Amino acid sequence: MPEETPLHERILDTTEQVLRRYGPEKTNVVDVARALGMSHGNIYRHFPNKKALLDAVSARWMHCFTESLSTIASDSKVAPAIRLRRWFDTLRETKRKKIQDDPEFFQMYHTIAKELHDVVTAHVAELLQQLETIIRDGIKAGDFHAKPGASSAAMAFLQTTFAFHHPALLVTRVPSDDEADTVFDLLLSGMIAGPVSKKLRPKVKKS
Amino acid sequence: MPEETPLHERILDTTEQVLRRYGPEKTNVVDVARALGMSHGNIYRHFPNKKALLDAVSARWMHCFTESLSTIASDSKVAPAIRLRRWFDTLRETKRKKIQDDPEFFQMYHTIAKELHDVVTAHVAELLQQLETIIRDGIKAGDFHAKPGASSAAMAFLQTTFAFHHPALLVTRVPSDDEADTVFDLLLSGMIAGPVSKKLRPKVKKS
Repeated sequence: MPEETPLHERILDTTEQVLRRYGPEKTNVVDVARALGMSHGNIYRHFPNKKALLDAVSARWMHCFTESLSTIASDSKVAPAIRLRRWFDTLRETKRKKIQDDPEFFQMYHTIAKELHDVVTAHVAELLQQLETIIRDGIKAGDFHAKPGASSAAMAFLQTTFAFHHPALLVTRVPSDDEADTVFDLLLSGMIAGPVSKKLRPKVKKS
Repeated sequence: MPEETPLHERILDTTEQVLRRYGPEKTNVVDVARALGMSHGNIYRHFPNKKALLDAVSARWMHCFTESLSTIASDSKVAPAIRLRRWFDTLRETKRKKIQDDPEFFQMYHTIAKELHDVVTAHVAELLQQLETIIRDGIKAGDFHAKPGASSAAMAFLQTTFAFHHPALLVTRVPSDDEADTVFDLLLSGMIAGPVSKKLRPKVKKS
């Protein structure tokens, strides 16, 4: 794929407009070319097919959520607990804004993303990487006692906060700030306290 | 609505079969009547319209998830932490079975339920009530230190475990037992430790 160029970005901007007008099913490369007043051969040089175009435009859409999170996650001057809270609040706030400003567009990207497993997998991997950085720093500093390690603790944090950022849930309901406070406090408390001792941990037969 | 009768149940059984064959959009009361070999007037005496029929069949479907949970939640002879774990595992296991045995049928009920807000609200209220019973008993016994109280702790537990039971997420991915262990341990640890002291709680400006 060529380097990002102004034309590359212009194609993606126009793709968004065409998607908004026709929806993901009916959008095709010819429509995008026509809207840009260029031959579709020109577009194919940047994006070999519709899927590549949708991949790129979705990756860009998801990047707008992760961009500011990356700075928060790696800011080692800030205490890990505060970074974790900022990461959580920034993700919530960015999603909330997008969904409130343009609910149909949010829903459309959600629909597109369901088909684009690679783009979603890369997006989730990026979020997990950021969480892992924060949690690993927290463990190193002795603030967190996450078991079995930063990687699975990152996954647990992502999973336990789905109500606040997963598009499949947000399209139905955006939880309140009070709910976010309660959930964050519960998770932070669990991470500070560390794993429940074997004596207290319920033994349940696995099915 | 009349008392549940064998005919009432037979109508719901047949509705499920018709739904399976035609899908929710195309299913109507006349099809259900025809499949039962009776006049649709007969069905209307039990269910005044298609919505009432879908409400009833969906409520019954959701009831199959909550039925066994109710016994677990109210079994005061069992320690609250163990009840909470059993409740979590039973809900996970029931959902997993349903989704694995018949993924299309699970997806279909998920699609129907999105339109039936009252049925879903009642279902969620029932789950929350069960969790509240367990958590309240845990607070009383001094095992849990949930703040600001059993009711919001129940909501937090439900929200933080969506990855393991919310249909909108399960249709995409069923998390592993290891992930369930890690998440449950984190939540239980947080509930035992109680709220993070103000000194440790990150202060973050609300946007």
